[in-house]
Amino acid sequence: MMPSYLAPAHEIVARCRQLAVHTEEPGFVTRTFLSEPMRCVHTDVRAWMEQAGMSVRIDGAGNIRGYYAGTIEDGPRLMIGSHLDTVPRAGAFDGILGVVLGIGLVGLLNGRRLPFPIEIVGFSEEEGVRFGMPFIGSRAVIGEIDDAILGRLDANGLSVADAIRAYGLDPASLGQAVATERTLGYLEFHIEQGPVLESLNLPLGLVSAIAGQSRLEVRFHGHANHAGTTPMHLRRDALAGAAEWIGAVEREAIATTGLVATVGRIEARPGAGNVVAASAVMSLDVRHTDDDVRSKAVTRLLSCATQIAARRGLTSTSESQLNQPAVAMDENLTERLARALANSGYREHRMASGAGHDAMIMAKRMPAAMLFLRSPGGISHHPDESVLPEDVAAALATGFNFLEQWERHG
Amino acid sequence: MMPSYLAPAHEIVARCRQLAVHTEEPGFVTRTFLSEPMRCVHTDVRAWMEQAGMSVRIDGAGNIRGYYAGTIEDGPRLMIGSHLDTVPRAGAFDGILGVVLGIGLVGLLNGRRLPFPIEIVGFSEEEGVRFGMPFIGSRAVIGEIDDAILGRLDANGLSVADAIRAYGLDPASLGQAVATERTLGYLEFHIEQGPVLESLNLPLGLVSAIAGQSRLEVRFHGHANHAGTTPMHLRRDALAGAAEWIGAVEREAIATTGLVATVGRIEARPGAGNVVAASAVMSLDVRHTDDDVRSKAVTRLLSCATQIAARRGLTSTSESQLNQPAVAMDENLTERLARALANSGYREHRMASGAGHDAMIMAKRMPAAMLFLRSPGGISHHPDESVLPEDVAAALATGFNFLEQWERHG
Repeated sequence: MMPSYLAPAHEIVARCRQLAVHTEEPGFVTRTFLSEPMRCVHTDVRAWMEQAGMSVRIDGAGNIRGYYAGTIEDGPRLMIGSHLDTVPRAGAFDGILGVVLGIGLVGLLNGRRLPFPIEIVGFSEEEGVRFGMPFIGSRAVIGEIDDAILGRLDANGLSVADAIRAYGLDPASLGQAVATERTLGYLEFHIEQGPVLESLNLPLGLVSAIAGQSRLEVRFHGHANHAGTTPMHLRRDALAGAAEWIGAVEREAIATTGLVATVGRIEARPGAGNVVAASAVMSLDVRHTDDDVRSKAVTRLLSCATQIAARRGLTSTSESQLNQPAVAMDENLTERLARALANSGYREHRMASGAGHDAMIMAKRMPAAMLFLRSPGGISHHPDESVLPEDVAAALATGFNFLEQWERHG
Repeated sequence: MMPSYLAPAHEIVARCRQLAVHTEEPGFVTRTFLSEPMRCVHTDVRAWMEQAGMSVRIDGAGNIRGYYAGTIEDGPRLMIGSHLDTVPRAGAFDGILGVVLGIGLVGLLNGRRLPFPIEIVGFSEEEGVRFGMPFIGSRAVIGEIDDAILGRLDANGLSVADAIRAYGLDPASLGQAVATERTLGYLEFHIEQGPVLESLNLPLGLVSAIAGQSRLEVRFHGHANHAGTTPMHLRRDALAGAAEWIGAVEREAIATTGLVATVGRIEARPGAGNVVAASAVMSLDVRHTDDDVRSKAVTRLLSCATQIAARRGLTSTSESQLNQPAVAMDENLTERLARALANSGYREHRMASGAGHDAMIMAKRMPAAMLFLRSPGGISHHPDESVLPEDVAAALATGFNFLEQWERHG
């Protein structure tokens, strides 16, 4: 019997909003790795998990894990999850929705056992806020927490290990956080955090890959001059050179399918209205699902900077700050998700994720797949972040069909 | 008999460097309106004036004034001057050179009396640093210091009137600072503070006019978006719009003879490398000797901003912060200076001043003319600011010929 999805979808949205009251900063949603409000989140999530028939534990990295047994004793499990931490002044759904929706899916089984167990995981850390390094939760599940990570310090001089202990957990038990070799796969529901699905009028999107990312700092160096006494032809204006290059960055991205390239930060020095800029410092962020396309774009943009600088009597320099490869989602698991989407009556749209997600980490050790839910207004990392209950219902329908197909056909 | 100018030129450069040790900030030249180090400057300047045969007074605005009597008792005088204050961390010559060079010219007369008196004035304030308003010294000489100006406060809450009293002067005596109606004219020697004379390989330039100036703040408003999840065609990137407009500003200035236009300050908000900019705020500085050309250029640039914004789904706004008309130098007085330049064997080059000078204020009440001395490297408002002794000698030769022609031919 096909359950009605809209009522549980409303319940899921309400639960996300309920978790949003647990915050470090009153009036906003701010919840970093193992901060005090995470205890209340764990209390609520544990209750919902147990209500859905799961046994619950908190692992050594502070991930909450609900185990829903299958008909086969201790068989390979399907993991469903996302993260429970937030950026400062966040919305209620980034990460949280994926955990609450996973619990909702198990709840829809209404006690029915599948041929495989399901483990719902609420990762303790994905955003990288407290320790300047993201994915602490999922890194623990794939066994990638080492002493270097445990020793990282937060703004108060507390280490990751200190934070784990302060929460009442034991870093020595981190080995028990690692997923078994025999895991069937990892499925993550997440809001898109962008405007694509809304622009296509679609509730859901299949993530084909998580884009690789280059971050650089690019500088133009010229000469400071008096804005009144220096004729145009005798200037070496670093900001004029930078502006020309920002235009080239935009054109490169528009001309390359799937490429996004962004200059989001700029500073002109000395930065006075009546002084021709001696230097301009900019950020460059370039992302694509094909690492080769991305690295060639970066090379072209840096060579373009050199050319612009040379023509203008400037120099340009750059410094690479991040060079993170793309991660493909598992074809097989994504294909199962695509069939479930079609079975549920939704049009398939495959898209890249421009942002990083836990699925990117989990994909190192097991098949991983992601389903995006439309983000109204493309808004995320903001109190106005939202999700439509109809879209949550669509995700529930797809997720439930995904489970039933696997149940029937293996 | 033609005096030799190189030795007095070296003396003038040495005197400027001597005054540069009187500073509010050890290790730098920083000397604002009636600050303590100005007392030492006055002591030195007074000595040099008296040595050249002048009677000296400090007027109610703190201007030092040396009177060199002519053969006709109390006849209309020629004023020669510039300012003795500096910007923070200045060089040794901006302003100061014009005062010291004027004293040097009188010194070259070696006691000989001309048919007219000469008054050398060292203005107390031109840079606008201490009270955020420039030209306090020359404003006093044309009788334009009112209660509003006297009441302006510095960073310590002291008013202009307080500063005058603290220096041992009396604001009530400001009337005695005003130049008589019968002044022949005002002549100012000043370093160019730009690269034009150097690029033309010329020691001296005749200032035809001081450019008018528009200063504005221009803003583009778009929408903040995630740099990874927002495809290029769905962005409303304020910084990309701003960059396109900065290019248009540069092209407009290059295409318009004599126009300079500068964006020297820019801020993108929120200003994170992974966030598409929601807004960009920029300075715009536009200068030309023809007010009509300048105001039409500003209009075109603002209309260009509107067009760029509309095409990109952005909005643009602007706020005018300064709209100062151009000031022409006196044709007659400038012609006398041109003849003296030719008589001294120098090629004439007429040029606009892109920066404001005391001559701009004095021109409101009397004929004013200016002679620029080449600025090596175009460097000014910087410790590396300099002047070539050969160029000072050229200015002395021109100035001395100017005085002698007036002496002989009236």
